[in-house]
Amino acid sequence: MTDPQASDWLDEIKWDDQGLVPAIAQDYQSGRILMMAWMNREALALTASEGRAIYWSRSRGQLWRKGETSGHVQKLHDLRLDCDADVILLKVEQLGGIACHTGRESCFYRSLDDSQWRAVDKVLKDPNEIYQ
Amino acid sequence: MTDPQASDWLDEIKWDDQGLVPAIAQDYQSGRILMMAWMNREALALTASEGRAIYWSRSRGQLWRKGETSGHVQKLHDLRLDCDADVILLKVEQLGGIACHTGRESCFYRSLDDSQWRAVDKVLKDPNEIYQ
Repeated sequence: MTDPQASDWLDEIKWDDQGLVPAIAQDYQSGRILMMAWMNREALALTASEGRAIYWSRSRGQLWRKGETSGHVQKLHDLRLDCDADVILLKVEQLGGIACHTGRESCFYRSLDDSQWRAVDKVLKDPNEIYQ
Repeated sequence: MTDPQASDWLDEIKWDDQGLVPAIAQDYQSGRILMMAWMNREALALTASEGRAIYWSRSRGQLWRKGETSGHVQKLHDLRLDCDADVILLKVEQLGGIACHTGRESCFYRSLDDSQWRAVDKVLKDPNEIYQ
């Protein structure tokens, strides 16, 4: 029998007017911020129950099981909520060491330098090899 | 004379339909994620030019110079942009060691444990002492 209290934690979240919440993924060991994506209620519930990051793809309008194509699954170690209850933080183990579709560890690979965004992190794997 | 190229980096950002972009603040030394807030074009331009985090308060509808009341200014060390150009990452030095209005280091002080959000980080300073 399902615990009637079990989804109360989902009700505490302040979903935006599209029913979404931003979710930040951070490497649980290095602290590196890997990416930020969005989750709806179903994505967050599945993330918690399956122990891996499952986002809501706004562009495709469907659940996005991170790593399904690339193998770069994010295993969940800790799920955090901020003080306003409108941002989620996932501490994860990034399988393959690559979160970004460009083949880099992190999506935040551009740094502002002299009024220009410059790529400062290296590509670890050719994206063509990741998405075959 | 102002360099006509100087604000091109702001044009590269994909502002949402409200002209905003999420901005994550991370401690530049410990890697701790401190908070996530929002910036409009003016806030981000000021953050870069003044070298401190300046957000856009959606609730108050005005610029939010982080630390103006509390003294908990966030000094900018690095500004990053993600692959989709729709999320900003700020690596900052958090003056006072407190980012959250609850008196904690980070706003992400609640962890999901047995289907409940539990406060797992301690309050470093009484909020009544911060906001006098």
